[in-house]
Amino acid sequence: MNIVQWIAAKRDGQRLSDDRIAAIIGGYANGSVPEYQMSALAMAILWRGMDDGEVVALTRAMRDSGDTLSWPDLDCPVVDKHSTGGIGDKVSLILAPLLAAEGLAVPMISGRGLGATGGTLDKFESIPGLTVDLSMDAIRRQVRDVGCVIAGASAEIAPADRRLYALRDVTATVPSIPLITASILAKKLAAGLDALVLDVKTGSGAFMKQPEQARRLAATLVQVASQLGVPTSALVTDMNQPLGRMAGNANEVNESVQVLQGGGPPDVRELTLQLGTELIGLIDAAPSRDVRRGLESSLDSGRAMEVFESMVAAQGGTWSGPLPCAAAHDLPARQAGYVASMDAEQLGWSIIEIGGGRKRLDDSLDRSTGLEMLVRIGDRVERGQPLMRAFCDVAGFERIRDHLYRAVKVVDQECECPRLVIDRVSSAISGEPS
Amino acid sequence: MNIVQWIAAKRDGQRLSDDRIAAIIGGYANGSVPEYQMSALAMAILWRGMDDGEVVALTRAMRDSGDTLSWPDLDCPVVDKHSTGGIGDKVSLILAPLLAAEGLAVPMISGRGLGATGGTLDKFESIPGLTVDLSMDAIRRQVRDVGCVIAGASAEIAPADRRLYALRDVTATVPSIPLITASILAKKLAAGLDALVLDVKTGSGAFMKQPEQARRLAATLVQVASQLGVPTSALVTDMNQPLGRMAGNANEVNESVQVLQGGGPPDVRELTLQLGTELIGLIDAAPSRDVRRGLESSLDSGRAMEVFESMVAAQGGTWSGPLPCAAAHDLPARQAGYVASMDAEQLGWSIIEIGGGRKRLDDSLDRSTGLEMLVRIGDRVERGQPLMRAFCDVAGFERIRDHLYRAVKVVDQECECPRLVIDRVSSAISGEPS
Repeated sequence: MNIVQWIAAKRDGQRLSDDRIAAIIGGYANGSVPEYQMSALAMAILWRGMDDGEVVALTRAMRDSGDTLSWPDLDCPVVDKHSTGGIGDKVSLILAPLLAAEGLAVPMISGRGLGATGGTLDKFESIPGLTVDLSMDAIRRQVRDVGCVIAGASAEIAPADRRLYALRDVTATVPSIPLITASILAKKLAAGLDALVLDVKTGSGAFMKQPEQARRLAATLVQVASQLGVPTSALVTDMNQPLGRMAGNANEVNESVQVLQGGGPPDVRELTLQLGTELIGLIDAAPSRDVRRGLESSLDSGRAMEVFESMVAAQGGTWSGPLPCAAAHDLPARQAGYVASMDAEQLGWSIIEIGGGRKRLDDSLDRSTGLEMLVRIGDRVERGQPLMRAFCDVAGFERIRDHLYRAVKVVDQECECPRLVIDRVSSAISGEPS
Repeated sequence: MNIVQWIAAKRDGQRLSDDRIAAIIGGYANGSVPEYQMSALAMAILWRGMDDGEVVALTRAMRDSGDTLSWPDLDCPVVDKHSTGGIGDKVSLILAPLLAAEGLAVPMISGRGLGATGGTLDKFESIPGLTVDLSMDAIRRQVRDVGCVIAGASAEIAPADRRLYALRDVTATVPSIPLITASILAKKLAAGLDALVLDVKTGSGAFMKQPEQARRLAATLVQVASQLGVPTSALVTDMNQPLGRMAGNANEVNESVQVLQGGGPPDVRELTLQLGTELIGLIDAAPSRDVRRGLESSLDSGRAMEVFESMVAAQGGTWSGPLPCAAAHDLPARQAGYVASMDAEQLGWSIIEIGGGRKRLDDSLDRSTGLEMLVRIGDRVERGQPLMRAFCDVAGFERIRDHLYRAVKVVDQECECPRLVIDRVSSAISGEPS
């Protein structure tokens, strides 16, 4: 193989054949393609793009660079959910036990915080004693016994993606739809799924700031996953303000439990129900209204919460009521008016600043810190009314107060709250939005 | 420094400040910037380009990554010439002693064959006993004693370029005007020159196939070299057919000696005189007609040849008449007509195929092989009349015969021979073409 000519072909805007993509990724995984060639190719892919066929080949090659799971001893569908990440997005913590309560198997392989956004694993670990570092055998056993697991990716799953992900991070080759697609799907498809639902975030707190970018990513993800044999739906959802009231670690777990007990903020509950309905719609011909009612009943009856507690216990933790949070500091509005916009990414960086996320890979977290949003976009606020509440020490609040003020824009004119679900892309034949 | 953000800036089409470029190249030279970041940046530069100011900063940083020469004990101008490479281009072998015969100092740092083109060092080494591997001290001494030297680059000259050049070759990041410019000039400007002349080739046997590309490269080279304090001129010259009659190694040395003795093919003599006149015009106010007459006289009187013999002797060789060539095989025209075009690059690959160049870095050369062109574009040919002559063994001729036929297009209509010198770009104030 002559990888230089293949890099040159992509550089010049040509497409790469399936065989060449497989040879490149195989060579990268076994070390015969060095990092410096992979990074040049990644930049050329970012520049020239890839068609859906190329992304399918890339995803397949990355999936097949390591172990793939299968579930011969299960007689229920195996499903998963992935979010591209946003502030306050705790849906995974709710959806995994909720889907398991509906009889599905959910081997949810999750990640740590990335950029300004928190990570499901970091949040879940707020529960005392709980671990997310599980062997493949432990994952299999827990899925069989409890129905769901939330764990970190093992080194055996898609190792080419693990290397490429780290390489892209240090070579400015992250924002490429083909590379993002292959990275997300390689790991998910290696888990042997029967269906997958994706939450593609767009807005000030999302990686994709523009809805059009998010739609393109959603379409590519659904197209590629379907071509690789996994029925997939994606919702494009709003991330112009944090999801729910709470953003942090312990406080997001607390809010998740509220939703699992039938309460919690309406947007978190609604998005959880819509994603769950989408997913079940991919494997079940029942009318989506009935599916949704089933999910609502699982939340309201406490069935989903029971599964959550079993999952926590299986992973070494104990749920004994709301987790403690750091001292609260209110941020009073400096003027009356309407909340026009929020810089949700800035809110995410502020949470990192008070210890809720990492600036460096080896930073340890203070999981008791976070923010509580007391207003939403479109709300009327009076001067002095608290806009939000920070959980942190006094020094931390001093450091972030000005950032928090800058992140919330209050204006004189009335404003509309953005729609929660902006678009839907599905490989299911019945194309009605739920 | 945060090199990832700087790669991202170039990726997004922003310019890099002088300080950032210096930090990146300094870091690359000392090993703190790894190859994989440099290759991603090179691809981003190839994609987005650089303005002249950025190329100046890049060239300066690469020049300053190693030793720079100065010539305190010389009381004559120090000059050099560089060609972007073509088939049969032996001008350096003639111009170095010719300029030295005119009283200039010529520390000519040359290269090996690259792609389809031969290299001055490979050709020069056809002379028995001659070496081009000289220490910096030996180069200094020979310039002082003989006036000229043709030698390979030492590891101390622009080491960042040496690494980047090798990296670009294996990451498909060669064809970028900013990167080519910095690479050519970093080495040349490290030699402490008072003036520089460049031969930017364009056509079927050149790296730049289109005259417009070559013009842009010439303009960038002249602009950047001038801003870094070295008066520079560039001629954009035709490479749609080999220069002169001979292409190979030993046979090119023989043809060079013909020109040094006042004979040789008119195009080789003409290009040598024009490049020499350009160069002297950069440091001497004399009318270019007088300069050209002086150069002609040096060739016709044998003075330039005397310097050539001294240079050969100083580098351990002996000139005792034409070098032997391999057995000759004529290629008769298969039809009558006019020579319309030649694929000069294909002719170059054919020379490599019969041992005149390298397919792999460690190939050894058969310097007695090569081609002799018996027709030029525009010539009338009769059926059976030899188009060219190959110097090689019978098996080699069998391998390349079809390639040679394909490389020469004979048509019914009359054709024009391309102009030798297409354009001129100069930093000299008197802007008249010579």
